[in-house]
Amino acid sequence: MNNTAQELSKLDLEHIWHPCSQMSEYDSVLAIKRGDGAVLYGYDEKAYIDCISSWWVNIFGHGNAYIAAKIAEQASMLSQVILAGFTHEPLVRLSARLCKLLPSPLNKCFYADNGSAAVEVALKMSYHKNKLRGKEKPLFLNLKNSYHGETIGALSVGDVELYKASYGGILIDCISAKVPCDFSAWGSEIVSEDEALSDLEKVLKTHAHCISAFIIEPLIQCSGNMNMPSPAYTKKACELVRSYEIDVIFDEIAVGFGRSGSMWAMEQVGFVPDFVCLSKGLSGGNLPFSVVVTSDSVYNEFLGDFDRAFLHSHSYTGNALAAAAANATLDIFESENVIEKNKALSAFILEQFKWARHHEKVRNFRQRGMVLAFDVPRLAGAKSREFRSLALNRGLLLRPLGASLYFMPPYVITRDQITFASTQIKELINEL
Amino acid sequence: MNNTAQELSKLDLEHIWHPCSQMSEYDSVLAIKRGDGAVLYGYDEKAYIDCISSWWVNIFGHGNAYIAAKIAEQASMLSQVILAGFTHEPLVRLSARLCKLLPSPLNKCFYADNGSAAVEVALKMSYHKNKLRGKEKPLFLNLKNSYHGETIGALSVGDVELYKASYGGILIDCISAKVPCDFSAWGSEIVSEDEALSDLEKVLKTHAHCISAFIIEPLIQCSGNMNMPSPAYTKKACELVRSYEIDVIFDEIAVGFGRSGSMWAMEQVGFVPDFVCLSKGLSGGNLPFSVVVTSDSVYNEFLGDFDRAFLHSHSYTGNALAAAAANATLDIFESENVIEKNKALSAFILEQFKWARHHEKVRNFRQRGMVLAFDVPRLAGAKSREFRSLALNRGLLLRPLGASLYFMPPYVITRDQITFASTQIKELINEL
Repeated sequence: MNNTAQELSKLDLEHIWHPCSQMSEYDSVLAIKRGDGAVLYGYDEKAYIDCISSWWVNIFGHGNAYIAAKIAEQASMLSQVILAGFTHEPLVRLSARLCKLLPSPLNKCFYADNGSAAVEVALKMSYHKNKLRGKEKPLFLNLKNSYHGETIGALSVGDVELYKASYGGILIDCISAKVPCDFSAWGSEIVSEDEALSDLEKVLKTHAHCISAFIIEPLIQCSGNMNMPSPAYTKKACELVRSYEIDVIFDEIAVGFGRSGSMWAMEQVGFVPDFVCLSKGLSGGNLPFSVVVTSDSVYNEFLGDFDRAFLHSHSYTGNALAAAAANATLDIFESENVIEKNKALSAFILEQFKWARHHEKVRNFRQRGMVLAFDVPRLAGAKSREFRSLALNRGLLLRPLGASLYFMPPYVITRDQITFASTQIKELINEL
Repeated sequence: MNNTAQELSKLDLEHIWHPCSQMSEYDSVLAIKRGDGAVLYGYDEKAYIDCISSWWVNIFGHGNAYIAAKIAEQASMLSQVILAGFTHEPLVRLSARLCKLLPSPLNKCFYADNGSAAVEVALKMSYHKNKLRGKEKPLFLNLKNSYHGETIGALSVGDVELYKASYGGILIDCISAKVPCDFSAWGSEIVSEDEALSDLEKVLKTHAHCISAFIIEPLIQCSGNMNMPSPAYTKKACELVRSYEIDVIFDEIAVGFGRSGSMWAMEQVGFVPDFVCLSKGLSGGNLPFSVVVTSDSVYNEFLGDFDRAFLHSHSYTGNALAAAAANATLDIFESENVIEKNKALSAFILEQFKWARHHEKVRNFRQRGMVLAFDVPRLAGAKSREFRSLALNRGLLLRPLGASLYFMPPYVITRDQITFASTQIKELINEL
């Protein structure tokens, strides 16, 4: 670390409480000066390949000049106006584009600022809609091993024990059904798709009458160790749930915008949910922003007297700078044929990581779209956090989820960078 | 409306579900093209004075060139990096500045994206801290008529019936104490400060053992009809709560950054809370951003084994563009002696609105810092929403809270604009 980096690290640790961190493990903290494509640079100009897209948000690179220019242009005009009763062109254009990209009947956009808030919007809308129909259904249904955010509602409908364990007394009611998984790498369970579906049916038979909505991360349970249930299972599960007149919420916060291999995971699943939550890639990885898209028929249920209205709001709902970033992101999707190009890139990543498939220290090798993952039993516990430092020394930003190592880079990563990352990761695992 | 505005309005209503709105009341929606100071402009160049700072967020004007330039500069370098394990200069600098501006012992910043999420962070931290000490205290305490946000945890600890009524079955436990108020304008209660304190003591005597935290908007309950309890009451209430070993959370989301007349409301109260939530003015009204600031002693309770950690996170926590906007905002506070200047501006506003103090249609005239409010009983119910349209026709963005009309402009509003707004409002009220 050079002097500036050292000073920033010291001042940081005096005043910043970092997210998702045990602060006693921080001896120092790495200050990032700038970014360029898939690479982040420290103050000593050391380069780090962002193998996790900075928490799965960045898709078109750090310091993307096109997106930066669009944000700057908008900032000089209007950065924010109250969205209750008013609107602005970047958001109108964005909403029309999103609705065109999403399958029918998803046609109405309700905005918020982060993934958690989007999940809360969807939960409240579903519960409220039932209430308007005279049905009191205060229960939500999720899948084991799911993650949907950190605010109390979003946390309640997730199932990653690590995040929930300390808050048992202040959560709302949620019931979980089994999810297909292979967690044998750490001596935990293997659940088949049939077993998961049969458990889901059992839960539904008992509790369906009081469940408003079923929430699911389609195709990849990201925080849940990058578990990848199949499209076929997902479709069957959703159809089963819908047959009980329960709303289906797709949390495509992490998997949307091409991460799953198609623009939306729902395309591969072949099922259109009642609500879809989008965030992360929505602004191309530049600004906090989220949206819930639902149907005209859900929207219409709330029309009428004022007291039927969905009165949720956040001050910055529909922020114009975030909308400008999102439009710029969609411009790039359109002009650069990203989804097609990613197919070749995804195949190249698979090829470069093929050494891992039969590596003696590796289990459960898997890939879906722009996410490749495998389990390394020796990475369990504190070892996983040590591994981050070792990777950083070698120029890689990696953040294994316990024993699950994953590679989820910005779509602009170069082939050389992929090869370099794969080689470094192989060496690190050999040394474990 | 010109053609562009009409097209935007039509497309908006096809695809956007607006916050805090009964959509059946939207025949059209006004598209704002650009902003300049306290003024917003439509596509026909009609000017609207933003008398509510676009939901209380904007303090240094729309399209502020200095803040826009700082955002643009940062966007070309780095807009976002994962904050778990990493940091960046804009956020480090901001955190040190905030801690210096806030009274001791507030010294550690935990970031989020909006006010609701900040409230959720504070609630979870307080509950979790007690849990780490072996105390299960799942209850929160608030004041009647308070508002703290819309996600399920934040909504649960608010008390504005309008926002909560539809979600009874999915809220967490909260108990309310009376707040000093004068709601006689609509035939509702008058509660004295003594009565409120005595009710608070009664609640504490019965429930204190299971209450983690007391949350309060110091000095102004903004969504609660701009109710303005005194600093003396607020101090007594907080000291009473603290004597029961209950954490105090100040929600300065709306009142922070000079809105109450001092930089922080806590300065006037003379009480330093365990947690303060800031948002809205934090980015100068440009980007979604929030922070919870707490003490080293709270922070230290979470140190130790990994499973003691506070694992809350949002993807965009500590966003670099929002931090750049926040630093630019603090630059302006420093360089332009804003708090002092606002004293004169606040006095000028009072002078211009003095006609309202004894107006026959007005009740409960009040002002605190940069918020002036009064009640107009004839504005109750749907009339209040009609009033918005009438005001808009006259070039004012106003948004009465039921029968409570308030004037809460950006600090850069000119004296001419204040005089114009006051004159227009007087005429509108005369015509009621």
